[in-house]
Amino acid sequence: MTSHNVHPRSHHRRGGEPKATREHTMRAAVLHGVGKITLEERPRPEPGPREVLVRVASVGTCGSDVHYYEHGRIGDFVVESPLVLGHEPSGTVVAAGSGAGRHRLGQRVSLEPGVPDFTCPQCRAGRYNLCPRMRFFGTPPIDGAFCEYVVVHEEFAHPVPDALSDDAAALIEPLSVGVWSCGKARVGPGTRVLVTGAGPVGLLCLQAALAFGATDVMITDVNPVRLGLARDLGASATLDVREDRLADAAFDPDVLLECSGHPAAIGEAVRSVERAGRVVLVGMGGDEIPLPLAHVQTRELEVTGTFRYANTWPTAIELVVSGRVRLDALVTGHYGLAEVEQALTAGTRDPGLVKAVVQPQE
Amino acid sequence: MTSHNVHPRSHHRRGGEPKATREHTMRAAVLHGVGKITLEERPRPEPGPREVLVRVASVGTCGSDVHYYEHGRIGDFVVESPLVLGHEPSGTVVAAGSGAGRHRLGQRVSLEPGVPDFTCPQCRAGRYNLCPRMRFFGTPPIDGAFCEYVVVHEEFAHPVPDALSDDAAALIEPLSVGVWSCGKARVGPGTRVLVTGAGPVGLLCLQAALAFGATDVMITDVNPVRLGLARDLGASATLDVREDRLADAAFDPDVLLECSGHPAAIGEAVRSVERAGRVVLVGMGGDEIPLPLAHVQTRELEVTGTFRYANTWPTAIELVVSGRVRLDALVTGHYGLAEVEQALTAGTRDPGLVKAVVQPQE
Amino acid sequence: MTSHNVHPRSHHRRGGEPKATREHTMRAAVLHGVGKITLEERPRPEPGPREVLVRVASVGTCGSDVHYYEHGRIGDFVVESPLVLGHEPSGTVVAAGSGAGRHRLGQRVSLEPGVPDFTCPQCRAGRYNLCPRMRFFGTPPIDGAFCEYVVVHEEFAHPVPDALSDDAAALIEPLSVGVWSCGKARVGPGTRVLVTGAGPVGLLCLQAALAFGATDVMITDVNPVRLGLARDLGASATLDVREDRLADAAFDPDVLLECSGHPAAIGEAVRSVERAGRVVLVGMGGDEIPLPLAHVQTRELEVTGTFRYANTWPTAIELVVSGRVRLDALVTGHYGLAEVEQALTAGTRDPGLVKAVVQPQE
Amino acid sequence: MTSHNVHPRSHHRRGGEPKATREHTMRAAVLHGVGKITLEERPRPEPGPREVLVRVASVGTCGSDVHYYEHGRIGDFVVESPLVLGHEPSGTVVAAGSGAGRHRLGQRVSLEPGVPDFTCPQCRAGRYNLCPRMRFFGTPPIDGAFCEYVVVHEEFAHPVPDALSDDAAALIEPLSVGVWSCGKARVGPGTRVLVTGAGPVGLLCLQAALAFGATDVMITDVNPVRLGLARDLGASATLDVREDRLADAAFDPDVLLECSGHPAAIGEAVRSVERAGRVVLVGMGGDEIPLPLAHVQTRELEVTGTFRYANTWPTAIELVVSGRVRLDALVTGHYGLAEVEQALTAGTRDPGLVKAVVQPQE
Repeated sequence: MTSHNVHPRSHHRRGGEPKATREHTMRAAVLHGVGKITLEERPRPEPGPREVLVRVASVGTCGSDVHYYEHGRIGDFVVESPLVLGHEPSGTVVAAGSGAGRHRLGQRVSLEPGVPDFTCPQCRAGRYNLCPRMRFFGTPPIDGAFCEYVVVHEEFAHPVPDALSDDAAALIEPLSVGVWSCGKARVGPGTRVLVTGAGPVGLLCLQAALAFGATDVMITDVNPVRLGLARDLGASATLDVREDRLADAAFDPDVLLECSGHPAAIGEAVRSVERAGRVVLVGMGGDEIPLPLAHVQTRELEVTGTFRYANTWPTAIELVVSGRVRLDALVTGHYGLAEVEQALTAGTRDPGLVKAVVQPQE
Repeated sequence: MTSHNVHPRSHHRRGGEPKATREHTMRAAVLHGVGKITLEERPRPEPGPREVLVRVASVGTCGSDVHYYEHGRIGDFVVESPLVLGHEPSGTVVAAGSGAGRHRLGQRVSLEPGVPDFTCPQCRAGRYNLCPRMRFFGTPPIDGAFCEYVVVHEEFAHPVPDALSDDAAALIEPLSVGVWSCGKARVGPGTRVLVTGAGPVGLLCLQAALAFGATDVMITDVNPVRLGLARDLGASATLDVREDRLADAAFDPDVLLECSGHPAAIGEAVRSVERAGRVVLVGMGGDEIPLPLAHVQTRELEVTGTFRYANTWPTAIELVVSGRVRLDALVTGHYGLAEVEQALTAGTRDPGLVKAVVQPQE
Repeated sequence: MTSHNVHPRSHHRRGGEPKATREHTMRAAVLHGVGKITLEERPRPEPGPREVLVRVASVGTCGSDVHYYEHGRIGDFVVESPLVLGHEPSGTVVAAGSGAGRHRLGQRVSLEPGVPDFTCPQCRAGRYNLCPRMRFFGTPPIDGAFCEYVVVHEEFAHPVPDALSDDAAALIEPLSVGVWSCGKARVGPGTRVLVTGAGPVGLLCLQAALAFGATDVMITDVNPVRLGLARDLGASATLDVREDRLADAAFDPDVLLECSGHPAAIGEAVRSVERAGRVVLVGMGGDEIPLPLAHVQTRELEVTGTFRYANTWPTAIELVVSGRVRLDALVTGHYGLAEVEQALTAGTRDPGLVKAVVQPQE
Repeated sequence: MTSHNVHPRSHHRRGGEPKATREHTMRAAVLHGVGKITLEERPRPEPGPREVLVRVASVGTCGSDVHYYEHGRIGDFVVESPLVLGHEPSGTVVAAGSGAGRHRLGQRVSLEPGVPDFTCPQCRAGRYNLCPRMRFFGTPPIDGAFCEYVVVHEEFAHPVPDALSDDAAALIEPLSVGVWSCGKARVGPGTRVLVTGAGPVGLLCLQAALAFGATDVMITDVNPVRLGLARDLGASATLDVREDRLADAAFDPDVLLECSGHPAAIGEAVRSVERAGRVVLVGMGGDEIPLPLAHVQTRELEVTGTFRYANTWPTAIELVVSGRVRLDALVTGHYGLAEVEQALTAGTRDPGLVKAVVQPQE
């Protein structure tokens, strides 16, 4: 598919296109079924009460975007009508709805892509990530950010300083997964951490663990390029599980941040965890995994999972601004809005790929 | 102190046995292999530094005793030489070793049956139940309490008031499992609790949950006698899983205290737990269970297991003294030291059995 | 729905008042300055989006109502224009604003009197009681519930079963203070608790502590009537500080719930707290108290205060429904809307007074 | 005072002194009253069961050493007989008592100077720092480490790698105060921290806070030399309270680590703390401080103090080995055993002094 066939007018956009029309529309990459994304001209959204309109600068691509593109569903979430993917956006505030007074226009922001209802019991308890009425970018039936403009609640458009690149501001979202995971695992100085899986989330869990004070962090993967990057980012040890067995490493972590999602690997990793250790299942690995019950019991391990994040943006931004976490190092490719399919399939062609970023304004 | 004062009837017990001998010996029920327990005369133990000698009054029988008797092992713990079972003893302090000054002689006590090394990192962190050098009654190779006398560190002989019966003082041990489980699950007022399995541990988890402030506690089992007892003890709902499905009950607990140890049942119970809920795996159910990963993740459940307990005795005693927990109601049969095998097999004959108690002095 | 169905007697209440007028107005007790409350006819409020209109049944009077009445201010909160006091209301939902679908009309409810903005960082972290934009009943400049009708966010109108009296439903508010305090203090089974001050809040902290599992709760006061009531409600010990010194009682609590607000007494009470104990300052005692620093340090006490409560209503309601907490026992007098001044001054005339309740429909 | 007058034989030590004598004795700096320390030859201690004998390499001097030297007491701890001060020692294991098998001889170690009884309820709960039978170096009546040899429980002689200097190994003790304080305050990424007082403990709290992930740490003092050092060590802001007022800085920390011990300053600092913030009183400031009650209540601050530390050594060592904390930068002077008085009074002569270290083998 090439964009000029599907959206013949899109190449005129910066040129002679009548301004009156373009003021109220935008281009969007729309998923119409498994393996089928088309570039379309859509109405530009209008910010509602307390919402801001954001011109999108960068959008990270995520494994879940790829999964929706390849399978049309993730668990109970099924793509049943055209959907815009993308939930890791940064951009600039260009308009504000009624009652939205937090930002000046022109403020660069990183968007938190899931807006809860704020008032249900889960929200009131501070667990808004578990709000049953959460509206999350790029999750059916809510459109995401592979488009030129999005609206979001003003409190979920987090200001970023100029020191942050557009890409880094976008990647605050996956970094938030790392921050949330380390918080759940109570990582701190003196905590020995094992990260299984050196994909983008694993690499960000690694960096988050180091930023939380851990000095002894081992990471595993099957991809030597990623393990090399992990060393550059501060891993104190790496393990290529095609060559070495975890059990032989005698690492005995206090915390396991499981980012591989491979059921077979999870059991072995859990068995390595020390007494009173914590296991956080970050990676998605199907509906059921075998849990080594006796080990969990006799060592009193705590096993939990993460579902998105809550209240992580200010911390994640601060970690990048202060230089404790490096996000730009993870970006291995940029794509225009017409190239979203290439962005989503880049990983199958390039083992060196870590994070593809879509820039809708290009 | 001489023993003939303290045990005026002891010379009658075995008939004409010379008193001089009996002062230094005692009877013990010894496991010599699968299904084979014999009553033997053994040297009476001497209290070491900071230890006390306790004349045993009541000893609860536990599923793990039964398991050792029937299988000769539990997981990695294998009975390789003659072993005295029994780890739920109460009794009276009759002698003190050097440096042991906590008790007056004659003090009635409930024994905490696992003594750690006190100085390892786990102990220093307050997790002495995870001490790798724990010496635990009735766990190979440490002898237990199905005998007339035991020694224990003075700090693990917890004084009980006269208001507590010998049986209740013995059953402080399984109640501690309930107290420990509720603590791990953070049960409190407003917590909705599901207990799966209404055996002794399930019934004590039920009572502990009520004592921790929970008012809405459902318990499940296949045994109507036990479910009836659960209702008497305060369960707000019971479910006979032979007749009704948990999923139909729409109970949605905040906390699951899993006491059945049935892998098949665990998955269904876990799936009923509410967002941010806690699952405590109390029952032993083999080496591996299937964990519903997606459910754990999207609801951010915390799953953990219990391994014995730490610092629970004073609290457990107080709960019984204050009448918040009833222990004597669980005792369904008494056995002498010569009847330990009958005590351990009573459950196979009597579906109404809950807790058999051995009284070594009878 | 029309109001004449729901309130058939309302046109009789003020005599011959034309019904047309009364449908849109209500009576309210309005504070016009220190010591001056007048009964006025005011517009009946209209429920806004997600709000419900509640016909008020019972309203507890609180020390802060008395303080505003007597002094016109509490700290930085100053009564600068006419104000309706009262923040402990129960009632019945009689109308719903747009988008409010939680209740059927006629639902009896207990009102949580402080509604936050739901979206600020404190709210998003689950600490909505610390929301800087909280609008709290009867706190300048927000009107309270000494009137016939109030509006409130539907999520803050908590349904109560018929088993709860109107008075009990009103007193869920001060009980929430007790629940919140016990939560902050981590009260549970085995916690030894000292409550200083046996006023309504102290008596509810006492009952909450018992409901959280504490079995050993001492309470102090100078009023023997209140101490007698405390014993009826389950206190394991009482101390009349006019006759006995706390230091002589050798009680050594793990938790101090300070409800007296007397700076002189606080220091002595803090000094009695055990190692690693918690001190919760519930009573208001002026701007500054002397804290025994060395004691706090060498025993590593945690000292904190409470400001209202968050997420306590369902739990508090459950505790009363289950019989664990008795609220009606605290009510010592009922007053009509025309008698609010008498209700607020009753305490100065009657040492036996605990809680005066205003019934606006009488 | 000079050492050659008081201990005429000490200058022979490395020379012709009979070896037989010196094998069983050692030199020690002994406090005999306010302002009076003499160098004496004393019996060399023998390691008891599970103890090791350590040849002391470096000993940090602490404000409490100075206080005992100047005042003869700290609160209830009174120097009533000759006392060796010094509780921040490093050294080498040179002998082991019975049952002590943790170290090889020659192992370099950092000593944790307070050994609890291990078995009391506080110890069993993991709070061994609150053990009422703690024996702490240099606290009456327990001798400390300003001498050539000390014995300590083997578990409290923590191995250090060669990467750590003797001085750094000694300063693990005050760093532990910082680690313990940050743990109590729950410092992590995103926590804004105010440290009041830039003495050794303040500077180590600063470094610990940075190592726990805080990126925004302000420190205050009246000494520009110390504030300059604080900036070198990573403080994001410094405030000279002689020139600027804290209230004007509008810093609004989440955490206050109070290391100044000045009652007047504490109140102002507490008033700056944000909602739900934590205040840890590290510095000692007499028996009573004025606590701004209303502020603590309306913001629900948590106020606590620290008493030594528990389980901090491995973490503290790791932070220095990994380069996250710099200890040698704090050492501003070295003194021999004959110069302990000069070491303890150096601070009164030199405003640039931070940490004086005694080297008993020199």
